[in-house]
Amino acid sequence: MAEKTKTNKFPEVRGGGSLILAWRIKDKKVLVVGGGEVAAGRILNCLDADAKVTVVCPASGLNPEVAHRVECAQVTHVDRLFEPTDLDGADMVLVAIDDPAASTTIWKLCKERRIPANIADVPPECDFYFGSVHRDGPLQIMVSTNGKGPRLAAIIRRHIAKSLPKNAGNAIEAIGTLRAKLRKMAPDPEASPKRMGWYVPLTMETRLEPR
Amino acid sequence: MAEKTKTNKFPEVRGGGSLILAWRIKDKKVLVVGGGEVAAGRILNCLDADAKVTVVCPASGLNPEVAHRVECAQVTHVDRLFEPTDLDGADMVLVAIDDPAASTTIWKLCKERRIPANIADVPPECDFYFGSVHRDGPLQIMVSTNGKGPRLAAIIRRHIAKSLPKNAGNAIEAIGTLRAKLRKMAPDPEASPKRMGWYVPLTMETRLEPR
Repeated sequence: MAEKTKTNKFPEVRGGGSLILAWRIKDKKVLVVGGGEVAAGRILNCLDADAKVTVVCPASGLNPEVAHRVECAQVTHVDRLFEPTDLDGADMVLVAIDDPAASTTIWKLCKERRIPANIADVPPECDFYFGSVHRDGPLQIMVSTNGKGPRLAAIIRRHIAKSLPKNAGNAIEAIGTLRAKLRKMAPDPEASPKRMGWYVPLTMETRLEPR
Repeated sequence: MAEKTKTNKFPEVRGGGSLILAWRIKDKKVLVVGGGEVAAGRILNCLDADAKVTVVCPASGLNPEVAHRVECAQVTHVDRLFEPTDLDGADMVLVAIDDPAASTTIWKLCKERRIPANIADVPPECDFYFGSVHRDGPLQIMVSTNGKGPRLAAIIRRHIAKSLPKNAGNAIEAIGTLRAKLRKMAPDPEASPKRMGWYVPLTMETRLEPR
């Protein structure tokens, strides 16, 4: 019994998951290779996060949505197949082309240059996966199946979206304003250790409560 | 009216969000600087994703949970304050110390070396934010408020966890097995364009359906 208590004192490591993170890519250069339906989704994700997106794809290969982004100057378009110099200055690379050999080449170049990359549909050639994301102002909820069932992820996301209160985004915006004021009033965490306490909640609360 | 139809044909860019991604950090070296409560949460997140974690912190500064991880050899412990050589070979750096000047120094070193980093409680010195994550086998659901209200994120996460069917994780595991079989049967997407179709769903479904 004493043994059991000891074991349960701290959360046990479960393994097998991903580290889900909200990346700040505002004004970062994201290179998208390919201009099909998958690329269109990736591009929208990146634009929603204010990235500077460059799409490399022959004009003939652009699907209507990607062509629309190019026309509106929402993205920079390079009208040809990928070349290694396209990686210059890139902070992130997303590849969505139906050419496994070319994809692998790009993946390897990215790894040499330490650029985070995702090769669509090739899990071993991904530093990260995308998931299905619900958005309401500052609130974002991402459902990941760790590559196992993207369609199911979309179903779960829709279920979640329906179950949330309508004003969740606004409530969070208001809390954010309060927190910013607090940061101004107590800029030095050492002088006000409680501020760090205010900040702590996430991962600990997540794991310490009963499931 | 024709104008309106045209505008609505493709999802509009909303901006202001983060790019939420599931990072594969299995066997990657994650350096955690600090050994307090925030560090403990970060460490658990990383261990749940099978990372190799190194904690740099004087032994006297370890909180009980971090000390427990060190005792169990779940993490490598460097018993002193941070030194720049600690960054050698690091794939990701997480800083959670109550020393703004030291934090900023580490942040700058990480940027020079192109290592993704998060300085807890200093939003401008973060490549990414953490959120509140629900986990059920391969299913992970992350709630981010883009730094505005972490406690509210935890509340929303709990609400979501309660609303999910009990067997969601198992269902996704089964779908994953089916997809792996499909990949073996049709390894070449060009020969079987429907496979890429199967893969497409996420971002497009996310945005094209009514909310």
